Amino acid sequence: MFESLPEEVTVYEVGPRDGLQNETVPLGATDKIAFIQALVEAGVKRIEATSFVHPKWIPQLADAEKVCAGLPEAPGVRFSALVPNVKGLERALKTRIHEVAIFLSASESHNKRNIHRTVAESLADYRDVVTQARAAGRGVRGYVSTVFGCPYEGAVDPRAVVRLVGELKALGVDEVSLGDTIGVATPAEVYTLSKQLVRDFGAKSLALHLHNTRGTALANVVAGLEAGIRVFDSTAGGLGGCPYAPGASGNLASEDLVYMLHGMGIRTGIDLVKLTRASKALEPLLGHALESNVVRSLSMHVSRPAEDGQDPAQGSFIPDPDSRRQKSGADVIALEKPQASKNIVTTFNQ
Amino acid sequence: MFESLPEEVTVYEVGPRDGLQNETVPLGATDKIAFIQALVEAGVKRIEATSFVHPKWIPQLADAEKVCAGLPEAPGVRFSALVPNVKGLERALKTRIHEVAIFLSASESHNKRNIHRTVAESLADYRDVVTQARAAGRGVRGYVSTVFGCPYEGAVDPRAVVRLVGELKALGVDEVSLGDTIGVATPAEVYTLSKQLVRDFGAKSLALHLHNTRGTALANVVAGLEAGIRVFDSTAGGLGGCPYAPGASGNLASEDLVYMLHGMGIRTGIDLVKLTRASKALEPLLGHALESNVVRSLSMHVSRPAEDGQDPAQGSFIPDPDSRRQKSGADVIALEKPQASKNIVTTFNQ
Repeated sequence: MFESLPEEVTVYEVGPRDGLQNETVPLGATDKIAFIQALVEAGVKRIEATSFVHPKWIPQLADAEKVCAGLPEAPGVRFSALVPNVKGLERALKTRIHEVAIFLSASESHNKRNIHRTVAESLADYRDVVTQARAAGRGVRGYVSTVFGCPYEGAVDPRAVVRLVGELKALGVDEVSLGDTIGVATPAEVYTLSKQLVRDFGAKSLALHLHNTRGTALANVVAGLEAGIRVFDSTAGGLGGCPYAPGASGNLASEDLVYMLHGMGIRTGIDLVKLTRASKALEPLLGHALESNVVRSLSMHVSRPAEDGQDPAQGSFIPDPDSRRQKSGADVIALEKPQASKNIVTTFNQ
Repeated sequence: MFESLPEEVTVYEVGPRDGLQNETVPLGATDKIAFIQALVEAGVKRIEATSFVHPKWIPQLADAEKVCAGLPEAPGVRFSALVPNVKGLERALKTRIHEVAIFLSASESHNKRNIHRTVAESLADYRDVVTQARAAGRGVRGYVSTVFGCPYEGAVDPRAVVRLVGELKALGVDEVSLGDTIGVATPAEVYTLSKQLVRDFGAKSLALHLHNTRGTALANVVAGLEAGIRVFDSTAGGLGGCPYAPGASGNLASEDLVYMLHGMGIRTGIDLVKLTRASKALEPLLGHALESNVVRSLSMHVSRPAEDGQDPAQGSFIPDPDSRRQKSGADVIALEKPQASKNIVTTFNQ
C-alpha cells in the first residue's frame, strides 16, 4: 500500500455549483463571485462555477451569466459549468467558461427522476452538446451519478458503469466523474471499479465525486488513490451537505480532502487556511455551520484574533505536503514538527 | 490493495467510558447499564464499561461499582474498565470486569498534563498494576495516547511509540491501543507505523484508537487494515465527540466503522440498526444529536414508524458483510441488491 502515491492530485471544486444548488438560502451573484475569488486565491485550479440549467429547476443558480461575467482573471485556473442540453450550452458558450459538464445516471430510475429521460435518450441528446462544445474549443466533463448505489434501485451493476463511461468517452467527453450520489460506497468497491476504469480508459479520463453521507468519503479517496485516480471532486466546507434532510447530499469537504492529501505528502497547490476562510465567510450568508470536520476544528483557531502578532491558524496542525513527503523505504516515517496549540485541554483522554 | 482483507474484525466499543467521560450531561447508572445492555444486544463483543479513576477527576464515571454490578450476563462478551493505579485496580478486581486498561502518552508533555508524571514514572507505576491484574486472571490493555501528534509538542517521534509499545508488552500488557488522541493522523503514517508494530509485536498485540476530529478516522482504519490491524476502538454514535469545543475528542463512531467494514465484506458480528438504536436512545438524555454520519443518515429511517409492516430501516442500504464478501479475482465485484429507499428526492444531483 502507498508504494506509488502521486506527488500531486487535483482537487476539483464543485462548491459554487453542486454545493450551492443544495443550499436553501439563495446567495447573490456578488457573494458567489467573492466566494469563487477566495477559492482562486486559496490556490484552487479547477472550479465548477455555476449551471446553465433552466432557472425554474435550480433558482439558486439562475444568475449563471452574471456569475460568469464576474469570474476573476486567473491564469492557470479552469472554470466549468453544468449544461443540460444544447440550449444551456449556447448560453455557456457566450461566457468564458473553459469547460462544460453534462450529467446522467448509471441507474435508469435515477436518470428518469433526475432528468426525465432514459439513459439512452440522455446519451443521444448529449451528442450535439459534446460536439458543439468541442468545436468551440471547450473541454467536456461527464458526470455519472449513482455509480455505487441508487436511491430507487439499490445496488448498481458496475458493468453498467463501465459501459456508460465507454459511451461517454466515445461521445468525446474528456473526463468522466464517477458520482457516489447518495454516499453509500465503501473502499473495496471503489478500488475495484476505479482500477478497472483506469485500466480501460486511463487515469486522465477519470475523477471521483464522493459524498460523505455515511462518513466514508475520505476512505474512498484512499481507495481511489491506490487505484490510480488523480482528480477528486469536493465542495469547500462540505457545502450542500445537509445530513438531516431527505436527499442529503453530504459532499466531501475540500478542506478534509486537502488536509488528508497534504498529510500524506501529496500536493494540491491549495492553502488550507485560506480555503477554510473562504468557506467560513459563507456561514453567515447561509445561516448554518458548515459540515467539514477540518473547518470545524480549524475554526477555533482561525476565528480568534491574532495574539502576539502570530497567525492563530498556526497552532492547528496544518500539514505541509513537501515536508510530509515520505522518503523511499517502508521504515522511514518523515514527519515535520508542526507548531503545537496552546489551548487544548485534555484529562484522562486517549 | 485489499488482497488480504480479514473475514472478521473486532470493534472495541469505548462509548460507555471514553465517550461518556467527554459528555457534559451526567448520566445515571441505570441509563448507562441500559446503554451497555443495548450494545450487547446489538452484538458488540468487547465493551469498555467504565473507569476506576478517582471520582473527582471524572465525575461522569464516579458510579463505576454500580455500573459493574449491573453489567448483563453475556457469554462471549468481555467488559473492561480503565484503572489509573493499584488503588483503582483493587476496586476493579472486586467487580467481574474481564480486563483492565492502563494509559499513558507517547509524548512527555501530554503525559505530564494528563496524568501528572513522566512516561518513565508511569511505566514504573503500572508495573504492579499489570502484575496484580494478571495474577487475578484479568486481561490488561494499554492505551498509548498522542501516537500521531501531541497538542503540546506537535509531531511525535514514531520511534518513541515503537519503544513504548515494547515496554508495555514487556510489562505484560496483552493489547496496546494506539491513540490518535487529537485526530491529526493521515493514512500513510498510520500504515507505516502500524505495519512496523505488527511486524515487531504481532497483530494480536495491537489496536487502533482513532478520532475523527479532521474527518480522517475511517481512511486511517483502511490504512490500519492494510497494515494488519484487526481491532479498532470506537464509540457508539461518535459519543464524546464535541467538535466545537477546545479539546474536542471526536471519537470514531462505531456505526460508521461497522457500515464501512460490512460494506467491505468484513464481519463484525454487530447489527447496525440495533447499534444505531442504542445510540439514538442516548440523544434525549445527552441533549444533543450524535456525530455519527451513519446515525444521522439512518435516523431518517429508524425514527419513522414502520409502514406496511416493513421495518423502515430496511430502506437504507444496510450492507450485509457476507453477501458483500468479494470473490477471488480482482475483476469480480460482488454486490448484493439492497432494498431501495422510497423517499429520497434528488434533482440535478451528481
